Amino acid sequence: MISSKDSSELLHHLNRIGIALSCEKDLDRLLDLILREARIFARADAGSLFLKQGGGLIFIAAQNETLDSRGGEQKSDYYGSSVKLNNESIAGHVAVTGKVLNIPDAYHLPSEVPYRFLKKFDEENHYRTCSVLAVPMNIPNGEVIGVLQLINAMNEQKETVPFPEMFEELMLSLASQAAVAIRNAMLLEEIKQAHLDTIFRLSKAAEYRDEDTEAHLRRVTGYTIVVAKKLGLQTKEIDFLRYAAPMHDIGKLGVPDAVLLKPGKLTPEEFELMKKHTLIGAKILEGSDQKLFQIAKEIAISHHEKFNGTGYPYGLKGEAIPFYGRIVALPDVFDALTSKRVYKPAFSVAQAVDMIREESGKHFDPVVVKAFIDSLDEIVQVKEKEQT
Amino acid sequence: MISSKDSSELLHHLNRIGIALSCEKDLDRLLDLILREARIFARADAGSLFLKQGGGLIFIAAQNETLDSRGGEQKSDYYGSSVKLNNESIAGHVAVTGKVLNIPDAYHLPSEVPYRFLKKFDEENHYRTCSVLAVPMNIPNGEVIGVLQLINAMNEQKETVPFPEMFEELMLSLASQAAVAIRNAMLLEEIKQAHLDTIFRLSKAAEYRDEDTEAHLRRVTGYTIVVAKKLGLQTKEIDFLRYAAPMHDIGKLGVPDAVLLKPGKLTPEEFELMKKHTLIGAKILEGSDQKLFQIAKEIAISHHEKFNGTGYPYGLKGEAIPFYGRIVALPDVFDALTSKRVYKPAFSVAQAVDMIREESGKHFDPVVVKAFIDSLDEIVQVKEKEQT
Repeated sequence: MISSKDSSELLHHLNRIGIALSCEKDLDRLLDLILREARIFARADAGSLFLKQGGGLIFIAAQNETLDSRGGEQKSDYYGSSVKLNNESIAGHVAVTGKVLNIPDAYHLPSEVPYRFLKKFDEENHYRTCSVLAVPMNIPNGEVIGVLQLINAMNEQKETVPFPEMFEELMLSLASQAAVAIRNAMLLEEIKQAHLDTIFRLSKAAEYRDEDTEAHLRRVTGYTIVVAKKLGLQTKEIDFLRYAAPMHDIGKLGVPDAVLLKPGKLTPEEFELMKKHTLIGAKILEGSDQKLFQIAKEIAISHHEKFNGTGYPYGLKGEAIPFYGRIVALPDVFDALTSKRVYKPAFSVAQAVDMIREESGKHFDPVVVKAFIDSLDEIVQVKEKEQT
Repeated sequence: MISSKDSSELLHHLNRIGIALSCEKDLDRLLDLILREARIFARADAGSLFLKQGGGLIFIAAQNETLDSRGGEQKSDYYGSSVKLNNESIAGHVAVTGKVLNIPDAYHLPSEVPYRFLKKFDEENHYRTCSVLAVPMNIPNGEVIGVLQLINAMNEQKETVPFPEMFEELMLSLASQAAVAIRNAMLLEEIKQAHLDTIFRLSKAAEYRDEDTEAHLRRVTGYTIVVAKKLGLQTKEIDFLRYAAPMHDIGKLGVPDAVLLKPGKLTPEEFELMKKHTLIGAKILEGSDQKLFQIAKEIAISHHEKFNGTGYPYGLKGEAIPFYGRIVALPDVFDALTSKRVYKPAFSVAQAVDMIREESGKHFDPVVVKAFIDSLDEIVQVKEKEQT
């Protein structure tokens, strides 16, 4: 029997968990946190999470302390697998009925219940599931978005025991907090994704007037992120680069067709017009309160400056060139070198790297060149991933 | 004295509040909800919220049941006013020290405390502040983002009493939940705003190749929202229109300079090229999983169709024209009519409305024309707001 004092401590604990879950914006880390906090809270050896999706229940996260402590690989082909939304499984039953199931021993279910326990995981991993507490994850309108399943409650002597009845309501509350946090994290992810989509789609609009394709923008952005990580930039800065880098050539929209689409070599006057794309880009992007656009503007205006001062539009030298511009300059050139153009074949990565190394301290910031060359494996991975 | 059972009920209540706060994404509604729930929870007659901003504490929300029940206007020039971040005021003291203040009577503060109570609000509103419970709003890293202040705890007999000590910790917990919810709502708002900024900035890139300015895009979008509201569309749909409408002419980026920038009348061949902007826009926007882009594509491809089937690119007729396209068609034309062009003066709103009424059932969907004319006041407001 748990005393009122204990009960009040548990409720305090639950409150703290709720706050912690609300703070976590990254979905994977959130799922992990939910399972961890729920297991600690209910002293469960293992746990798993299912989310409703496309008419089924997707198995998306699991933790198992016993198997972890044994070391070795766990059979994890269950991730992403789906359970039917019907009464036949424990999780399915909970999702369909919206009711808690508190099962003392999964191997000894009453004959009259419609659900069965699937022993396959236990058999493959030499594990013995005994007590199970499965609760629906409700959002406040009553909708069930998934199921939180805790396995094998442990007593002080590390023996498996049934889950105390009082945990049913407490875990329901925790599962509701989890449901809202998951919903919020997904919504945030969706909005961020929509924003990124917008940037790529509208930036690639230049595709209709230039040979820059969306794939070029994705590669340049991908390379930029690799280099930025190697340079030790913070997550927040890297995030800004992810959104800002694709807009580096947006100013090309302001360059006349006669110049932008000219097949042959540009006259000096035409090249002057072409150079203006940096200033036009800055003008499109300037004047925003958003840090994102301040960085995007910085990149648009400075990604053709050269470290030795021979670039454009201002001929800035060394550290007078904005840092983000010095970073993006290299991926932009690397992608041009390794891509086929009407006037040149695609150079190999090795040839392009030689050329870039040669330009260290001339065209490019040596610090950026070093970071780029030190992460060549990841660069090649990005190149292969964003081929078309 | 409050029993353990009561305490456990209060904690349950607190949990439910936490979940409710996490669900509210709209900042204004959230602030309102926080104050309401906190007041009910602590049986307080009044309450106010302060948020840290620019080196001060901004007064952003207040509720007062006694003044509400008296009816009449409350002096509310306090909204948006700022309290210094120092020990001199109750809220300032709480924000600086991060400690709760539980004051039995604000008019009888001990002489040794550094803070004073400002009687001005009481005097102006004939109110008597007695007990005050002021708690810091902490996010889990310990940072104080604001102060929640409850005023005049009421007993069962509706008499003002001091706040029971046990509420101090409970309100701290509620204030933390509130802090995280406020942070999350602000973050969401920021990301949405950044997305909207991106759409306008990149869509106005066409400005460099056309006379469509950002102001034109803002007006067309503003008019579209007014009409959509009048047509009774849901908030979610209106939100999509807010993001999608600015992209209606994005396909102009694919029209050659020679056509797009030609000062005189277009030849039939040139006009055929010009018409392609609807199809090019669709191509830029198509193929996304995002509902936003599906709607944006629909608008881009269909906003030059006419209700009687004489529009382009497909000559669709009546309800065969996508609904959102039928809506945006009208604001787009209205703004062109009421704007000065190189080849024509700006028509007055009255002239433009006559022309539009004349085109009901011809160029425009009569339902849309009616909604537009019925909301002419709001339309004119948008026009005046987005002038430049």
